[in-house]
Amino acid sequence: MAGGVAAASALSSPWKALLQRALDANAHLRHSTYFQLATVGAGGRPANRTVVFRGFQEHCDKIQINTDTRSNKIGEISICPFGEICWYFTDSWEQFRISGSIDAIDGSSADPAKLQHREKAWFASSVKSRLQYLGPQPGIPVVDEEQAKDVHLEPSAGPVDAFCLLVLDPEKVDYLNLKSNQRLIFTRRQKENGSSDWMAEKVSP
Amino acid sequence: MAGGVAAASALSSPWKALLQRALDANAHLRHSTYFQLATVGAGGRPANRTVVFRGFQEHCDKIQINTDTRSNKIGEISICPFGEICWYFTDSWEQFRISGSIDAIDGSSADPAKLQHREKAWFASSVKSRLQYLGPQPGIPVVDEEQAKDVHLEPSAGPVDAFCLLVLDPEKVDYLNLKSNQRLIFTRRQKENGSSDWMAEKVSP
Repeated sequence: MAGGVAAASALSSPWKALLQRALDANAHLRHSTYFQLATVGAGGRPANRTVVFRGFQEHCDKIQINTDTRSNKIGEISICPFGEICWYFTDSWEQFRISGSIDAIDGSSADPAKLQHREKAWFASSVKSRLQYLGPQPGIPVVDEEQAKDVHLEPSAGPVDAFCLLVLDPEKVDYLNLKSNQRLIFTRRQKENGSSDWMAEKVSP
Repeated sequence: MAGGVAAASALSSPWKALLQRALDANAHLRHSTYFQLATVGAGGRPANRTVVFRGFQEHCDKIQINTDTRSNKIGEISICPFGEICWYFTDSWEQFRISGSIDAIDGSSADPAKLQHREKAWFASSVKSRLQYLGPQPGIPVVDEEQAKDVHLEPSAGPVDAFCLLVLDPEKVDYLNLKSNQRLIFTRRQKENGSSDWMAEKVSP
């Protein structure tokens, strides 16, 4: 792709294959599925936190993240519905910066397909991980160290109110390989028929 | 600190000791000095990338990062001079979210002390690392794969134009320990005499 812009395959996102390869190469590391999600927070200032990759949505590029409806990022996303993921793979020295819009799906969604995605994400996470959504609101002062230790949850019970599925729809992916010192920028291009494809460009690191 | 707010020592930032301990505990990992820096970019959207911790500024809490004046973040910081660091320590399972204002110091600074900090940061980085500031502008299309391979730099030569020191002045630190499941929020409080101290609060993770 040296020398400029090349149209990438419209069938599959070209960066997705790179990302899948990085996930495979770093799979022995527990933290390989952790990345940092930046949003715009209070007063227009940036916010940044580590979250867990919960897989791609079926048959597409959209990236899934579980979160608590009571966390600050929900309010932030309702004001500025954009995010940038920074995902650094510590073993292969690869960085993916993935920016796009974020859809926050809680139990009040009117879209049955979205509610189904949320339910699927709920059951895909461990019962232990589900329990955190029954705990106290994140970020509030701890008053009683012993509270909320006896929470019980039926494994067959559906998503609780505090459970929210975030879906990031990638628009641009900036890939950097620190071993080969190569950088590629992938940009999504909307086509006239409503579908989209990706352009790839090799740029200076 | 259970039960509410406690005034932390005014002499030293209480979170700095926690961060130093995390740095020591993870020092065997090359990536332990890498963190993600979020800023607000084009169109008010969040931007996020991995950068390298270049130490604290002498006798204070300010965090130093080297960057290229030609990178996007310089323009972003000139419009919105705030950042949030997300620093995840993969071995000790600790996360530090450090937010504050960012000062970008390039060679045009009128402040001799700042220029001195910049020069010190330049010589503190390896000659190999300095060479990148003589390479092509980051993010521009690669036209000739072979270009800029014969760049030479005198080890005694001072900072080049493209070298910029970023200094983040922390205002709030959100600490999360995933092993003990404990979270502390440290907030800087300005005092009447111009100095400041830190408040620490234990909150729900």
